[in-house]
Amino acid sequence: MPEKEKPEKKLEELGKSVLRQIEEKKNPDITLPVRVLSNIFFDEKLGLVKLGDKVSHRTYLNVAHTRKFMQTLMVAAECRKIINQGVTTSIRDLYYALKRTIPGTNENTVEDQSESDPIIEDLEAALDTLRERLHLQADRKGYVAGPLTLTDAGDTIDCTKMGSSGWAIPSNVEDEIIKFKKCTADFVLVIEKDAVWQRLNQDKFWKKHNCLILTGKGQPARGCRRLINRLHNELKLPVYVLTDADAWGYYIYSVIKQGSINLSFLSDRLGTPGAKFVGLTTRDVEKFDIPKNVTIKLNQGDIKRANEMMKYIWFKPNEWQDELRHMLEVGHKLELEALSSKGIKFITEKYLPKKIKERDFLP
Amino acid sequence: MPEKEKPEKKLEELGKSVLRQIEEKKNPDITLPVRVLSNIFFDEKLGLVKLGDKVSHRTYLNVAHTRKFMQTLMVAAECRKIINQGVTTSIRDLYYALKRTIPGTNENTVEDQSESDPIIEDLEAALDTLRERLHLQADRKGYVAGPLTLTDAGDTIDCTKMGSSGWAIPSNVEDEIIKFKKCTADFVLVIEKDAVWQRLNQDKFWKKHNCLILTGKGQPARGCRRLINRLHNELKLPVYVLTDADAWGYYIYSVIKQGSINLSFLSDRLGTPGAKFVGLTTRDVEKFDIPKNVTIKLNQGDIKRANEMMKYIWFKPNEWQDELRHMLEVGHKLELEALSSKGIKFITEKYLPKKIKERDFLP
Repeated sequence: MPEKEKPEKKLEELGKSVLRQIEEKKNPDITLPVRVLSNIFFDEKLGLVKLGDKVSHRTYLNVAHTRKFMQTLMVAAECRKIINQGVTTSIRDLYYALKRTIPGTNENTVEDQSESDPIIEDLEAALDTLRERLHLQADRKGYVAGPLTLTDAGDTIDCTKMGSSGWAIPSNVEDEIIKFKKCTADFVLVIEKDAVWQRLNQDKFWKKHNCLILTGKGQPARGCRRLINRLHNELKLPVYVLTDADAWGYYIYSVIKQGSINLSFLSDRLGTPGAKFVGLTTRDVEKFDIPKNVTIKLNQGDIKRANEMMKYIWFKPNEWQDELRHMLEVGHKLELEALSSKGIKFITEKYLPKKIKERDFLP
Repeated sequence: MPEKEKPEKKLEELGKSVLRQIEEKKNPDITLPVRVLSNIFFDEKLGLVKLGDKVSHRTYLNVAHTRKFMQTLMVAAECRKIINQGVTTSIRDLYYALKRTIPGTNENTVEDQSESDPIIEDLEAALDTLRERLHLQADRKGYVAGPLTLTDAGDTIDCTKMGSSGWAIPSNVEDEIIKFKKCTADFVLVIEKDAVWQRLNQDKFWKKHNCLILTGKGQPARGCRRLINRLHNELKLPVYVLTDADAWGYYIYSVIKQGSINLSFLSDRLGTPGAKFVGLTTRDVEKFDIPKNVTIKLNQGDIKRANEMMKYIWFKPNEWQDELRHMLEVGHKLELEALSSKGIKFITEKYLPKKIKERDFLP
């Protein structure tokens, strides 16, 4: 869903609204969505972790709010400034750009970055926008290869011709920077681990199976999750996710699919409810005759985590309940690299083709 | 220095030598360089941390060696196999590919990855080669932009046309994968932080100053260090390094320049003794009138580390002694982002141009 209004317009409106209140001799007040667990819910119809509609008020003439009120306006003003300059900056740079000593006092505008970061999230939630659209860049990681041509800041990138590296996913993949030009792929395979991605890229898996391969290098960064969302929503590509068969892998999948609690106010832009889980599962050990000595015994933490996950509403489908119960029964987990015990090319030539052909997915 | 012999040839020779010893009814023996601190020295002429010439013997008929002897040959055989297949794999996949239970026993060939990883380093040192040439990929990170055209696994990459992302540095940058085609840059600027790299890329710093900009995202991965080495040695490009003004930043510089103790046997391929340090220094605070409130007070760890570094032979030049002494005197460090307190574009429009023009470097 593209935003109707430009973020600079929204920032301007925020400023004008404060000004208006001052002119009317009111106590200036900024309305913010409440971003705590009690205001977060799972929207079963959309399949997304969402923020509820409770709001709070940050007012200037409240000593408990004054500092944060000032910081909110400072961050908003700086964002407006860098958008006007046509530049982008990191949240660390933003913090340094704001930091100064208030004249005639010993008080700093911001003391450290842990003060400015939550203000950015407040603004994203309040203005219903992404920090990337406020020209703030998040950390980036992840790579793509396959039949997709796009422009990145004006340069044309053909993701079939990116060598051993792949196209590096930038922090900002919004339409103003990244425009999709042509895509003939049938689906997107999202891979937890870069080493496995490199294996698939070297075997030109994307060519043989006419797909895009994408890795987020562990828990995907925002840019990567946003790109998956755009590939699914705009290019209508099915999304299949491949992770380790362990609690961390399943968690990564759930964040790609449903969004996260932390960024619940952005789930519609960062989550992809249509995603499916292709593997690895503990059921695969038998299905693919994987030697037992490459499985890893569950530790106490794994057992606790699996039991917790069984209670999560988004792991309630029978197939997930069965997988988690099975993991606890057999008492082991396994990594994607365990498939290499069947030969280095087993994952690209046997495992994935069979799983995808038989649509052997978890929901 | 390109290797004279192909690594598969070296692996073959290793195998043949063991075979010959068995046929001669000798106790099979593999000679390995000793990779401990006592065999590491700083070669002042080359400006590199180097491995000395002490060797040890790993023999089959010594119960303390037998397991490692077997593992050494298994790793060597697997490398030979994947080179023949024309594929590359990760060190984690290698571990899984080797792991099996020895028939008729409860003994596994390798128990976990901490057993197979040091064997890889043994082979690199013994065969005087890089794991990348044995088709084992290391973790990768880092990006490049600027007037350099290369081929990456056969695809042509023009690093002036890589959008906001840059060309992602792969794990293997050896000549067999990455070939330099054309480079008109005057120097390479190596930047510790990706966020700063993105700032420079957005300002097209590489265009205005006819250079390559390269980031290793913190401590550079092997591929990144090797690429810097190749750019300097093969394309004769001066290398300038930009890091935070703190012990960690100075350490990153020293590893890029002199190599590291861990990988001392690879210093000639991973180190770049000709590199120079462009900044940040604590002396810059006064030179560039940087506000005091964006500096960070040294903690006990910083003070201890700075005192240690003053004793390192590679920080002995007067300029470094002065900088470290000055850091301890003023009692603060600072980050690259601190320059943003002078405006978001200060680093690209003022700081770097002045530093480079005046050749205000540390050795």
